[in-house]
Amino acid sequence: MYRTHNCGELRAEHIGQTVTLSGWVQRDRDKGFMMFVDLRDRYGITQLLFSEEKTSKELFEKARTLGREFVIQVTGTVIERVSKNKELPTGDVELEVKELSILNPAKVPPFTIEDETDGGDDLRMKYRYLDLRRTPLQRNMIFRSKLALETRKYLDSQQFVEIETPFLIKSTPEGARDFVVPSRMNPGQFYALPQSPQTFKQILMVGGLDRYFQIVKCFRDEDLRADRQPEFTQIDCEMAFVTQEEILQTFEGLTKHLFQHTLGVTLPDFPRMSYDEAMRRFGSDKPDLRFGMEFNELNAVAQGKGFNVFDAAELVVGICVPGQAEYTRKQLDEITNWVKRPQIGAKGLVYVKCNEDGSFKSSVDKFFSQEDLQAWADAMGAKAGDLLFVLSGEAEKTRKQLNELRLEMGRRLGLMKAGDFKPLWVVDFPLLEWDEDAERFFAMHHPFTSPKKEDVERMLTGDHETMKNLRADAYDLVINGSEIGGGSIRIYDRKLQERNFKLLGFTPEEAEDQFGFLMGAFEYGAPPHGGIAFGFDRLCAVMNGQSSIRDFIAFPKNNQGRDMMIDAPSAIAEEQLEELNLEVTEIVEE
Amino acid sequence: MYRTHNCGELRAEHIGQTVTLSGWVQRDRDKGFMMFVDLRDRYGITQLLFSEEKTSKELFEKARTLGREFVIQVTGTVIERVSKNKELPTGDVELEVKELSILNPAKVPPFTIEDETDGGDDLRMKYRYLDLRRTPLQRNMIFRSKLALETRKYLDSQQFVEIETPFLIKSTPEGARDFVVPSRMNPGQFYALPQSPQTFKQILMVGGLDRYFQIVKCFRDEDLRADRQPEFTQIDCEMAFVTQEEILQTFEGLTKHLFQHTLGVTLPDFPRMSYDEAMRRFGSDKPDLRFGMEFNELNAVAQGKGFNVFDAAELVVGICVPGQAEYTRKQLDEITNWVKRPQIGAKGLVYVKCNEDGSFKSSVDKFFSQEDLQAWADAMGAKAGDLLFVLSGEAEKTRKQLNELRLEMGRRLGLMKAGDFKPLWVVDFPLLEWDEDAERFFAMHHPFTSPKKEDVERMLTGDHETMKNLRADAYDLVINGSEIGGGSIRIYDRKLQERNFKLLGFTPEEAEDQFGFLMGAFEYGAPPHGGIAFGFDRLCAVMNGQSSIRDFIAFPKNNQGRDMMIDAPSAIAEEQLEELNLEVTEIVEE
Repeated sequence: MYRTHNCGELRAEHIGQTVTLSGWVQRDRDKGFMMFVDLRDRYGITQLLFSEEKTSKELFEKARTLGREFVIQVTGTVIERVSKNKELPTGDVELEVKELSILNPAKVPPFTIEDETDGGDDLRMKYRYLDLRRTPLQRNMIFRSKLALETRKYLDSQQFVEIETPFLIKSTPEGARDFVVPSRMNPGQFYALPQSPQTFKQILMVGGLDRYFQIVKCFRDEDLRADRQPEFTQIDCEMAFVTQEEILQTFEGLTKHLFQHTLGVTLPDFPRMSYDEAMRRFGSDKPDLRFGMEFNELNAVAQGKGFNVFDAAELVVGICVPGQAEYTRKQLDEITNWVKRPQIGAKGLVYVKCNEDGSFKSSVDKFFSQEDLQAWADAMGAKAGDLLFVLSGEAEKTRKQLNELRLEMGRRLGLMKAGDFKPLWVVDFPLLEWDEDAERFFAMHHPFTSPKKEDVERMLTGDHETMKNLRADAYDLVINGSEIGGGSIRIYDRKLQERNFKLLGFTPEEAEDQFGFLMGAFEYGAPPHGGIAFGFDRLCAVMNGQSSIRDFIAFPKNNQGRDMMIDAPSAIAEEQLEELNLEVTEIVEE
Repeated sequence: MYRTHNCGELRAEHIGQTVTLSGWVQRDRDKGFMMFVDLRDRYGITQLLFSEEKTSKELFEKARTLGREFVIQVTGTVIERVSKNKELPTGDVELEVKELSILNPAKVPPFTIEDETDGGDDLRMKYRYLDLRRTPLQRNMIFRSKLALETRKYLDSQQFVEIETPFLIKSTPEGARDFVVPSRMNPGQFYALPQSPQTFKQILMVGGLDRYFQIVKCFRDEDLRADRQPEFTQIDCEMAFVTQEEILQTFEGLTKHLFQHTLGVTLPDFPRMSYDEAMRRFGSDKPDLRFGMEFNELNAVAQGKGFNVFDAAELVVGICVPGQAEYTRKQLDEITNWVKRPQIGAKGLVYVKCNEDGSFKSSVDKFFSQEDLQAWADAMGAKAGDLLFVLSGEAEKTRKQLNELRLEMGRRLGLMKAGDFKPLWVVDFPLLEWDEDAERFFAMHHPFTSPKKEDVERMLTGDHETMKNLRADAYDLVINGSEIGGGSIRIYDRKLQERNFKLLGFTPEEAEDQFGFLMGAFEYGAPPHGGIAFGFDRLCAVMNGQSSIRDFIAFPKNNQGRDMMIDAPSAIAEEQLEELNLEVTEIVEE
């Protein structure tokens, strides 16, 4: 036995007992005649005492050879600590060591293994085993494990069955790029890794499993942003004989359960907002509701006063930043430059200060009278002391810009509080999006999403313009401005699915080749069904008020898709390529 | 709402209520003026009644159009059933239908959707959604889900953390063949899909996570046998600061928990047997202990009597088949031919009948007197009425052959009872196996397995012969002759790991290139650790007394590694290959 207790376990009640602990040397303090060592494991830290007086000289000298991160085993007596440490659960006691065994020495780690580390991203990923020893990462891993278990317990209580779907499936061109896997037994042919188990979970509904879920890895070969990983995890769910309302209730229930049982947070019922309303009020389909600053459309009061920029604009829209009328010239210049950066792309920013004395000061005083500005303030519900920001231009673009500005002001004013959770269902998404460049429709959610019942007939028979206005039984769960989950009611009728594929630019042959099995399944008694998938990595991060998913993934890849620790991907042996009937073509450096 | 209740829910207490059900038409019986329909879903079957008397003519006619596997929704009144069906939980009631809606019609299924189906393997895999509707498969999927949840609950209660390890890792030549995944972002380089998370779970121990588990897919590109799949599922576990004894205790605990909470079976403590003993007593490292017929070595009593076959043999060994002395000439010929088949490869089979009158009749009466045979019977603990089978030859081969014969006799005599569970720990495996053909050592478990403490010094300094006799802290969990799990205490010292790689034929460069990260991790404070992995698919099958894992996998692949339903693998687009810097070489048909 390497230990009788772990390093987070000893309390006053253990005083007098002889115990054995194992763990890592966190730090030591050599006081000359006494030496203290903090021994660490996943469960906590226990202070070890080596005293020259009570310890053999040999043992004391051995203790002096210990370095940070050495793995040791000690046996000794639990004694009362003279100066108690209230910060530590074990702070009432210490271990007077009688025996010390060095299980494994350690080189000096390349960064400090403390809550705050001095290691850069690359170093932390290369020495992930050291980074994982840090308490924040251990806490994250344990949180993630608990979140997964609570997900399973809840869904089990709702009669969901967890079913594993295959990882070696078929490549389909719709959606993101697939990772592919050459098949040795079927030369020249490839499997693909699933971007999601979408068609399989639908097949399970046709197969009568009724309620399916899976916490499952998915794969997308996309160019990576800081916040994306080539492999990520989903809580993937599907239900048969179900309406949108029942799905929202079920997964609102799941979300509440998870917040309650991991964070102790009781969430109120989730508000719902249509896609159109979300775009109008926040310029985003994933609004952060932790703060206001809703959009106010000002066309009626701001146009026709001779200010060309506004008069020529499709939309004039603003937000009221409460209590910020004192913004300085410098701050205003700075935020104006911020919205003019290429990433945001606004041409300019109009501001209006609602002074405490009831007067207004704006960047467009030349064109607008105090009465005009009063009308703006009224339209925006502004009070004295508030600051108005107004953007104008093409409606969709302008809304997006103002959304960015609103979020930025939320950040600057500290309105995105970590412990504050504002969930929201966004519903009634458009079914199809017209892409001007590609000259084709794309599925707003995915090709299996059903139009609303009242739109089915129009979809089957309508013209091109009609298609742009079809609504889907599709929904997103948004928390604090992050899309946590998304789903839809699915098509379960062959004819409607064929129509959808046609609208999405599939030839009948392509549709049959790629999804013939699913359309075939619809002919053998497919029930109405629908589902949802939650981004599990993101959910972990959002629940902990963090923005990066990397610290919730044990072994993340960097932005080049590389695992820095094991150094993957890498070249493979020529014989492996031969067995797979493959050749690497000449690599052209870009 | 598609339903107020499911099809397994209605009882006498619901009589008089108006309810709505949805489901599949299992069968109908048209009695002319009355029609009965069995409506099925995952939860059960409810009888629907359409009566000409009480139903509109229109509704009755509509009911007559229903076919098998139609998906329908019905609303009606729960009434008492005249002839109750005691077989069905819902058998006290039926639903007098008032409204019928056909949600989706169905073509005639290509095989019957009943407990026993007439569909062949290929057809069942192609129409997996229909096969999955059958009760046995639904039961299997639900069992599997419950088994996974109970695994997680138990391991959570033992402070294990479930941590997801990556699927896109690095290819290593040791072990089975990898599936590889070309990297678009790193042209000419490949990821590999993990054969197991072995090195990652060890890294997690170095990372201080202390107790890790994961229910995880693993991948092996091997030629497939009936009961192998290219992707399979493991319960994968690792513990730090742990001895073999603690691991056996923990996972014996898990196994008992699973049997108790899914089958209601209480298992007694598991016996343990060394590898050597298992080979000696059963000729197998995974003996089926549901029945006896242990091996008895007969060299002492059977050699030196002038029977050349025995005299020239390294080993003469037999089993006593209880109560089968009445075996006929025909049966004896048949079983003799059975052991002589190339798959078994015995040269012949010696039998001895222990007659009820105390005399013996054997196939070697020419060479052995009644007294000789009495000595055999004594050595084998045989009684009057028993039948002895004896094989001879080179020891290892002969033991394997007799193992096959023992199992075959167990099958023929019905001694492998489905509800009888006989778990066993096999321990003290050899560390290395010498392969005469390859002229090198192979790891009996895997290259990370530690020799026993007392063998470490011999391993570091011993000669070639010494290496053959090293014992490992390695163990297998065997249930009813199936290997359910296997694991070991790991090496955690760089020097010892380097030595092991060298014995396994790695050059220092190869070892560093493939496993440098792990050996590097050992230098930064690696704790002693060990673990185990359970084959989850097999565990499901064995617990249900079944031999094939396919019926416990929702979407299995066939022996050519193909998914018959989605028709994968398949060719991919030329552009995909180009993006990956790959070319398919000419395919030579064999």
